Amino acid sequence: MSSALDAATASRIDHVFFVACGGSLSIMHPAKFMLDQASASLPSDVYNAAEFTSRKPRRLTPQSLVILCSMTGTTRETVAATRFARETGARTIVLTTDTDSPLAQAGDHVVDFEAPYTTGVPIDAKNSNYARLYQLVLGLARAFDGNTQIDALLASLGNLQTAIDKAQETFAPLFDDYAPRLARKDVIYTMASGASYGAAYSFAICVLMEMQWINSQAIHANEFLHGPFEVLDEDSAFILFKGLDSTRALEERAETFLTRFGSAENIMVLDAETLDLSGIDPALRGNLVPLIFFDTLWRFAYKIADLRGHEMLEARRYMKKLDDY
Amino acid sequence: MSSALDAATASRIDHVFFVACGGSLSIMHPAKFMLDQASASLPSDVYNAAEFTSRKPRRLTPQSLVILCSMTGTTRETVAATRFARETGARTIVLTTDTDSPLAQAGDHVVDFEAPYTTGVPIDAKNSNYARLYQLVLGLARAFDGNTQIDALLASLGNLQTAIDKAQETFAPLFDDYAPRLARKDVIYTMASGASYGAAYSFAICVLMEMQWINSQAIHANEFLHGPFEVLDEDSAFILFKGLDSTRALEERAETFLTRFGSAENIMVLDAETLDLSGIDPALRGNLVPLIFFDTLWRFAYKIADLRGHEMLEARRYMKKLDDY
Repeated sequence: MSSALDAATASRIDHVFFVACGGSLSIMHPAKFMLDQASASLPSDVYNAAEFTSRKPRRLTPQSLVILCSMTGTTRETVAATRFARETGARTIVLTTDTDSPLAQAGDHVVDFEAPYTTGVPIDAKNSNYARLYQLVLGLARAFDGNTQIDALLASLGNLQTAIDKAQETFAPLFDDYAPRLARKDVIYTMASGASYGAAYSFAICVLMEMQWINSQAIHANEFLHGPFEVLDEDSAFILFKGLDSTRALEERAETFLTRFGSAENIMVLDAETLDLSGIDPALRGNLVPLIFFDTLWRFAYKIADLRGHEMLEARRYMKKLDDY
Repeated sequence: MSSALDAATASRIDHVFFVACGGSLSIMHPAKFMLDQASASLPSDVYNAAEFTSRKPRRLTPQSLVILCSMTGTTRETVAATRFARETGARTIVLTTDTDSPLAQAGDHVVDFEAPYTTGVPIDAKNSNYARLYQLVLGLARAFDGNTQIDALLASLGNLQTAIDKAQETFAPLFDDYAPRLARKDVIYTMASGASYGAAYSFAICVLMEMQWINSQAIHANEFLHGPFEVLDEDSAFILFKGLDSTRALEERAETFLTRFGSAENIMVLDAETLDLSGIDPALRGNLVPLIFFDTLWRFAYKIADLRGHEMLEARRYMKKLDDY
């Protein structure tokens, strides 16, 4: 980590690209949110890896830093994007759980992380992809903007798993209450803004769509009011995140609308204000609660899977069953 | 237009923010796509207006140019975002059909455009929001990067309406074929990449969700393969755009997958290669076909509305019927 950061900040950088696919792309949105608020000197973009490689943005130069992530390190588009970035002379930092993977071999610098899906055993959230990425972001902001939040981040990450474990208990009655109703829905929307949008996106596409074959979409909490809200009726199912970042008012406004015209029994609201976040720096709580939302929602997903008679981790029609698409 | 551009480029700019809500936000994505490929000097971001105002990105400074759009000029979040941007000292260009609107009054420079929805009479596409925005983008790229495509853009825009009218004829049999089947679906996904993603987004949220109360999501063509594709079966309905920009291969790959595991009769593909694009500069066709997709699809939307017995422009539960949310 620190060697990757030292190498990346040794000379001038004028743009950061966050590049990945699917679930790994979802964590790049909160990374950009954090960088947007921590750095006045570093513009950044978030791209799906194939979009990045084929778009060929002209801002990609030898002064660019490209941060890429793939859990297994085998995502072909992300490996290709790493090679493409290096060919332009840009520096690359790759995040993966497998330091021997094609992605690790393709990148200039490798940062490894832990994921529960690879080993089947619980991890400490301080070793997750989110945690590593946030360390990179605040490391960049320290190097280029004199931002001093990195120590508070490291201390907060040390207390994060405890907060997640407590949140599991806090949210358990909510999940027990909503699972039987939401398990019967054909469409479940997720909604959030700011730092939490990525977690809403990954829950929609990786859990509801991929693992449960439930139609879904992550709707931005304010965009909701500019079109999507017209689908809302008493039967509509929503999972709304109310985080603690500077966009919370958008999520509160969406909640007011949802509960006014929808049915509260189909609208599950995860409110970070109900959580015990001891040991997490107040200024970083908005950035860290998305990890809590996403991690705790796994329990909810397993409940839904159980009720639907649908295996979570095994049930795929296409992913990992085909290799010719 | 030219006076707005002259004023905006009179001194140094180091960041462009594209800011709006809903349908007006959808055109900001292709604007950024164009700027990414035309300028090495200007980083840019696309934000929902309320997200922008509450995120408060530190890159927003007196050296920023903020381009905002609202058809009626009354969208509260966009007006607030304009005021917020000006308070930081940034320059603002606002696009609206009403030069007396709150948005027009809030911005430094006003660029007006035409929309068929406001007058009920057909417009020439060269006077649309897309057309104005593209002129701004290539005007910026000319001023800061020496890009010379602006003349080709103006000439191409002069021929665009003819291309749209021809495309209506080309796509008419497709629309006749698919409307009866898609009108019966509860969920219709749209899909695209690159320059066309914004058109897929607006068709999903403004037409299918807002006007037809059909569940929808705009799925990025490559993200589709990293989760969402698991919802695909013989009954799934998709509208896929195959554009002519540098990301076309992503859309082709998505089509291959869709037609392999879905049913071709529920998957409507709009392929720009089937269109007569005479008079449109080959280098700009990728940027301009999204206007053709979106404009022609209105006819398809009216067909669906007819078959569902659902009024297009009048049927709203909430929008323009409430003013207290």
